[in-house]
Amino acid sequence: MSKRLWDKGEELDQLIHQFTVGNDPAIDRALVYHDAVGSAAHARMLRSIDLLTEQELRSLLEALRDVCRLSEENRFDIPPALEDCHTAIEEFLVRRVGDAGKKIHAGRSRNDQVLLAMRLYLRSQTVSTMQSLVELCQALLCRLDEAGNVPMPGYTHFQPAMPSSVGLWLHAFVEALLELTGDGLALLERINANPLGAASGFGVPLPLDRSMVTDLLAFSRTQRSPIDTQNSRGRHELKFLRWGADIAGVIEKFAWDLILYTSQEFGFFTLPQAFTTGSSIMPQKHNPDVLELLRARAAKVRAAESELLLVCAKLPSNYHRDFQYTKEPVMRTVKNLDEMLIVLQRVVSSFGVNEEKLRISMTAELYATYDACREVRNGIPFREAYRLTAERIKNGQLDQADLAKDFSFISGTLAAETMEAREELLSSAAAIEQWAARFAQAEVDLFAE
Amino acid sequence: MSKRLWDKGEELDQLIHQFTVGNDPAIDRALVYHDAVGSAAHARMLRSIDLLTEQELRSLLEALRDVCRLSEENRFDIPPALEDCHTAIEEFLVRRVGDAGKKIHAGRSRNDQVLLAMRLYLRSQTVSTMQSLVELCQALLCRLDEAGNVPMPGYTHFQPAMPSSVGLWLHAFVEALLELTGDGLALLERINANPLGAASGFGVPLPLDRSMVTDLLAFSRTQRSPIDTQNSRGRHELKFLRWGADIAGVIEKFAWDLILYTSQEFGFFTLPQAFTTGSSIMPQKHNPDVLELLRARAAKVRAAESELLLVCAKLPSNYHRDFQYTKEPVMRTVKNLDEMLIVLQRVVSSFGVNEEKLRISMTAELYATYDACREVRNGIPFREAYRLTAERIKNGQLDQADLAKDFSFISGTLAAETMEAREELLSSAAAIEQWAARFAQAEVDLFAE
Amino acid sequence: MSKRLWDKGEELDQLIHQFTVGNDPAIDRALVYHDAVGSAAHARMLRSIDLLTEQELRSLLEALRDVCRLSEENRFDIPPALEDCHTAIEEFLVRRVGDAGKKIHAGRSRNDQVLLAMRLYLRSQTVSTMQSLVELCQALLCRLDEAGNVPMPGYTHFQPAMPSSVGLWLHAFVEALLELTGDGLALLERINANPLGAASGFGVPLPLDRSMVTDLLAFSRTQRSPIDTQNSRGRHELKFLRWGADIAGVIEKFAWDLILYTSQEFGFFTLPQAFTTGSSIMPQKHNPDVLELLRARAAKVRAAESELLLVCAKLPSNYHRDFQYTKEPVMRTVKNLDEMLIVLQRVVSSFGVNEEKLRISMTAELYATYDACREVRNGIPFREAYRLTAERIKNGQLDQADLAKDFSFISGTLAAETMEAREELLSSAAAIEQWAARFAQAEVDLFAE
Amino acid sequence: MSKRLWDKGEELDQLIHQFTVGNDPAIDRALVYHDAVGSAAHARMLRSIDLLTEQELRSLLEALRDVCRLSEENRFDIPPALEDCHTAIEEFLVRRVGDAGKKIHAGRSRNDQVLLAMRLYLRSQTVSTMQSLVELCQALLCRLDEAGNVPMPGYTHFQPAMPSSVGLWLHAFVEALLELTGDGLALLERINANPLGAASGFGVPLPLDRSMVTDLLAFSRTQRSPIDTQNSRGRHELKFLRWGADIAGVIEKFAWDLILYTSQEFGFFTLPQAFTTGSSIMPQKHNPDVLELLRARAAKVRAAESELLLVCAKLPSNYHRDFQYTKEPVMRTVKNLDEMLIVLQRVVSSFGVNEEKLRISMTAELYATYDACREVRNGIPFREAYRLTAERIKNGQLDQADLAKDFSFISGTLAAETMEAREELLSSAAAIEQWAARFAQAEVDLFAE
Repeated sequence: MSKRLWDKGEELDQLIHQFTVGNDPAIDRALVYHDAVGSAAHARMLRSIDLLTEQELRSLLEALRDVCRLSEENRFDIPPALEDCHTAIEEFLVRRVGDAGKKIHAGRSRNDQVLLAMRLYLRSQTVSTMQSLVELCQALLCRLDEAGNVPMPGYTHFQPAMPSSVGLWLHAFVEALLELTGDGLALLERINANPLGAASGFGVPLPLDRSMVTDLLAFSRTQRSPIDTQNSRGRHELKFLRWGADIAGVIEKFAWDLILYTSQEFGFFTLPQAFTTGSSIMPQKHNPDVLELLRARAAKVRAAESELLLVCAKLPSNYHRDFQYTKEPVMRTVKNLDEMLIVLQRVVSSFGVNEEKLRISMTAELYATYDACREVRNGIPFREAYRLTAERIKNGQLDQADLAKDFSFISGTLAAETMEAREELLSSAAAIEQWAARFAQAEVDLFAE
Repeated sequence: MSKRLWDKGEELDQLIHQFTVGNDPAIDRALVYHDAVGSAAHARMLRSIDLLTEQELRSLLEALRDVCRLSEENRFDIPPALEDCHTAIEEFLVRRVGDAGKKIHAGRSRNDQVLLAMRLYLRSQTVSTMQSLVELCQALLCRLDEAGNVPMPGYTHFQPAMPSSVGLWLHAFVEALLELTGDGLALLERINANPLGAASGFGVPLPLDRSMVTDLLAFSRTQRSPIDTQNSRGRHELKFLRWGADIAGVIEKFAWDLILYTSQEFGFFTLPQAFTTGSSIMPQKHNPDVLELLRARAAKVRAAESELLLVCAKLPSNYHRDFQYTKEPVMRTVKNLDEMLIVLQRVVSSFGVNEEKLRISMTAELYATYDACREVRNGIPFREAYRLTAERIKNGQLDQADLAKDFSFISGTLAAETMEAREELLSSAAAIEQWAARFAQAEVDLFAE
Repeated sequence: MSKRLWDKGEELDQLIHQFTVGNDPAIDRALVYHDAVGSAAHARMLRSIDLLTEQELRSLLEALRDVCRLSEENRFDIPPALEDCHTAIEEFLVRRVGDAGKKIHAGRSRNDQVLLAMRLYLRSQTVSTMQSLVELCQALLCRLDEAGNVPMPGYTHFQPAMPSSVGLWLHAFVEALLELTGDGLALLERINANPLGAASGFGVPLPLDRSMVTDLLAFSRTQRSPIDTQNSRGRHELKFLRWGADIAGVIEKFAWDLILYTSQEFGFFTLPQAFTTGSSIMPQKHNPDVLELLRARAAKVRAAESELLLVCAKLPSNYHRDFQYTKEPVMRTVKNLDEMLIVLQRVVSSFGVNEEKLRISMTAELYATYDACREVRNGIPFREAYRLTAERIKNGQLDQADLAKDFSFISGTLAAETMEAREELLSSAAAIEQWAARFAQAEVDLFAE
Repeated sequence: MSKRLWDKGEELDQLIHQFTVGNDPAIDRALVYHDAVGSAAHARMLRSIDLLTEQELRSLLEALRDVCRLSEENRFDIPPALEDCHTAIEEFLVRRVGDAGKKIHAGRSRNDQVLLAMRLYLRSQTVSTMQSLVELCQALLCRLDEAGNVPMPGYTHFQPAMPSSVGLWLHAFVEALLELTGDGLALLERINANPLGAASGFGVPLPLDRSMVTDLLAFSRTQRSPIDTQNSRGRHELKFLRWGADIAGVIEKFAWDLILYTSQEFGFFTLPQAFTTGSSIMPQKHNPDVLELLRARAAKVRAAESELLLVCAKLPSNYHRDFQYTKEPVMRTVKNLDEMLIVLQRVVSSFGVNEEKLRISMTAELYATYDACREVRNGIPFREAYRLTAERIKNGQLDQADLAKDFSFISGTLAAETMEAREELLSSAAAIEQWAARFAQAEVDLFAE
């Protein structure tokens, strides 16, 4: 018969039990693997301070490896009566290896265990999200190679402003994603900290070797203060969600742009018909629902940040059960980002470029600043050149064909800048793979004989 | 073979299809019933303008009644290929009654159909949530009858301020809930508006009788402008979520109070052991997790409001697919509120009152203002009385036993106020039941022979 | 020498004093008038229970009338040493009328006094904001009379959808504002509740006549529970800010529409040159900054709601000084709404309609649904009619000129609907003026001999 | 006569002008210095590509140095007619140095100029905020040295959990602030990017040397894509505000803790009387308003983040005037953080420790986990030890005096951890000073002969 970790032989009201357990049995499926990995490191540490025998360690590692395997096959179930993945794993261990299973919780509380599993989950998701960002950059660069030099009006205030190009537009998103990749690498460095050993927030009178766990799990540092470690529940999650919100914000902007540019009024780009959806009432419609939903998903991601903040805000120090609700907004966001990034990549690779419409949209007035810049190159102070050009516009004297010759500076600059961007992308991709390899190796070593 | 409503024989990319459909097949289970009811009203109206024969109407009503029944038994499925409940129901009708099924969409678009189903859903949830508020009030009043006159320190700035009582404290929540019930009745009046007939936002060249639908569905008014009707997507949902957030805020405050008052330092109240949970590491613990989670759930409810706002904000006029995401935060909130209200009611009925600890907490300084008020009754200007009392406190001259005699004014006032509150509760409960009856009768009439 | 209300002869750290006083001396200028009115009612009530003599009452009323007058002339200053308007007014009264001034605080605390002043402020702002909404409706209806029947494409998903008209578009905003006016009237009813007499949240042992104050100040009800009254700090403010956020949301939508429709790609409307601004670098630019800032202001209004919510959320019962920060977001929002509404009205009355461009934008495909509706009127089931029309579109067989004849239904419906809207506007305006008159009369009576 | 930068001789509606200018004349006072510094770098670059003569450069640098000086003395005014600091400075330059002043805007737009000034402002505020964090850490460490080993109950779920100490509690905030300092350093690296040269978002046909400006202003990198540079408006501001919100969150937690611990029920700590405030009605009160307002200020900081997000969210690419409103929430937050940090430091240095009350609060049950750990050290599996201890608690067999001997492990661990923390603090402080020196040197070099 299964039991809660804190079972002391007392009854619990069923309604209250269901309410306190909540969605954990479902949510925690994403944590089983990471909790098993963290437990393996904890077991090795307990062995090192003689709280486990070598035999006990071996049997625990073997059982935990099985938990990992079951989790990967999505076959490790968490019965509601067992509350969460941590209890389910301890119960599995006790069933499989007896006393060693009863020993593994020495020196830790469920609270620092959750912190640890979430930390491992967060860093793993950070790595895989960065990998998706890199792929999306590559997809954008492909389109840039193909259609980068097609001219396109540049807008400010939603009014025609200056000559731009399809490449200039695509390049903007490459850079935004590169910045996000850089943010991701900085995030990883900040959140890769080991919480285990804080116990319930006040340490334990056992000679734990916290730095050993830090090394075993390839963490960059140990969180020193046990109270601050418990206070940090939700803190690193928030950093991750903010990063997710920034990613969603870039996707939102791209989607908005494409909604406008595929409208009949602009007509710069087209969506493949297989990407559009129809109307239940208007037979002529081909709607860019996919773009609108990409835009709207950003709201979900930002609201998750809001939810997490509201859960954690305004609480005094130390653990409160409120923190149980720090997990779900993270898991929901991971799912949202995954779907958004894969769908966006598909859109990027598939939209059509309407060169004809783009070319005829390059009106004379777009070149007004070019005209003023020519005067500047001739030594006229800019503020005077500005007024001269304004005068010429009034008199219809802007010579578009002539001014358009200066447009080539854009493709020149773009070529140089995208070359730099490609180099940065390569170097970021390499840095990401190094982290991935470091984490993978730590897991291999953990379960090695 | 099943088909999307807007099927024109073209292929749709599978990944894009899944992304655009999203969670609708699951979410829409809550709307099936309401969509069938709305469709019945629409069918009756089409009959009245001769777009359906009497025979067609009868067969449609019968089939729609079956949809309602299947939905109540949770047996009406929405296959992902059919996108949402509206398509699934139309497909069901076509299969069951042939041409009449193909006729029912005349004069409406899926967009005003969603608006209608959500409107019916919202008003139904508003009614049932108000019913829960009434029950919760009754539970609080029961406890007030029982322990209302037990004295209890009153705090401001978290410092002892003035004499209070268990009844005064409970009464605060009765009034807060009564105010929320009043807000709910006002909300119902505001949102009980018929959107059907706006079609995709620009009407249709058919002689629809919109006020007939308004009457059939017991709506209070018709939304006149078709564009504004489409723009109102999410608007009434937001009003509902704000109300939900206010309810959650009151629950949060009650939970916080009880967390404090059941702490060892206060010790005013106790939770039954069957309502507390233990610690995985600390054997002595009995934690009020249920209260902490009640408090934390408020974050989920408020974040749903945030999510809805972000989905709808900053969009130009007219329908955008973004609005698809207005449904889920509402459904999630309904579930959260339901659980919170039932759990809170259980807590209210079960917590213990530690009279002993409450009585010994009634320190002399709580009565300082009573002392000043005596001087005021003797004609001393308040500001001087205030300083006289301050002087007496310094000199340890406050006579608690004597001042405590004035405490009885509290129970007197409380008795009068709660009598008024009980009357207001009865009258609110009656108003709620009137709405419930009005809506129920409309449904009965709709499917009557 | 001036003194804080709670001065007991002790020193206060200057830095801490400045921090706790904060912006109150500036913010509270908006409350001076309302606090004086509230104090007049309180004084009349104290007289009725013999805590003031008739002579004292008269001298207080006269002094308070002077405070009102000074406030209206913006000449009532609040020295930082006096913390806030309540202290400054009490000090003014003591200086002017001696002992009577020292008596006025009997039976109230600064906390319920702030609640009262804010309540009077909120209801006054609600009335004046509703008056602005009515004026804006009238401005929109003027333009509708003038250009309502000019055809205009209707969009969904940002794609041409169905025939619409300038009138249909303007009507949407008339209805949205009417709904907001109705919300405002409902809001007023909900927030028009008297908090005075709750004192610091636990009543006082004095025979206060709370319902007399309720009547004197034309409140609709008395807040019964003193604890709930203190807990309600920020609660009514939040209701007001949400309403403000809804107003801002409608303005945002109108601004977005006009940004799009005045763009070169759409070209439906124009802004007068005197309403546009230029670029520091691009000589040709005439930008709709005013529209963009109207849109962006909505963010400020919504953030104020967020600020208020965060200040009040997650606090246990009773007064906390946190509530001091509930005032500023309200005052900021009032200022923002005032500016937005007056600027928007100017824009509404001034934008130009480009009939030529609108007419040529009425493409054949807009009429597809009209085509299907014709078949429906001929007895073809809608779902079949839909596919027939889809076929005709593919074959280029839609006869625009012929279908356009059905367009007249729009102007017919619009005429009927706007007539109803005008009636509702008149009746709302009358209801607003009734409230305004009721509040004004109460003030007149209060200071009458 | 003064003129807007984009003046082309046309009239502007006054109401619209006031609305578009908004608060910029006041807000921009904080940017004058930074805009002058940025302009100096731009001028040097223009000289390097021969768009300025050496003589012109010298006169511009001299005039810009004067602008800096005037700004430092708070004497550089921005007349509303001139809209903002950028126009006011250009006008000042034209007045002072004639044609050179008219030349300085070559190759830049006001938009990338604002980006630049904000970037310099943000990095400067980041440095000074980090300096305040370091000082606050030092204040905490002082108190830790003094009272660190006083025992104190540790709570979870607001229930007594395990033995803790005043030092353990203070250490938590030292670590939280160190983490924030580290976040600040990472933030600085991310936001220290040069936007100048993007012009209005599409570059200009002039041979600008962007990397020269990057070097002159000690930026870490150049933002390559001009469109992305304009899209980044608000992006770095948001990163700063999030960091600010995290700082505010730590202050909020400390304030909450101290509100609880200085309450009469806990009584662990005391506030100096000069830090408390009184009540207008209750003569006995000494309230911790300063702590409550520290807690409540966090709401203002978080709302500023919300405001910025809402301003920037859901906009298509390129500059929109909405971005004007990205400045104010940043400036407000800087002010809030400054005040909060200085007030908190004062509180930290001044609160009293009630050793007596702390010692008597160390109940036996706090040591339950210590009891279980002893069994674990004796080889009993933890889960069994847990149940043995639970049994002993039931039977009243926990020997507090004996178990308390194990408490010493806490002071041991704390000593080691705070030593590490002190080292990290020193190294962070050094890193901050390096940045400060680097930025200061760049400014010196910029204005050097």
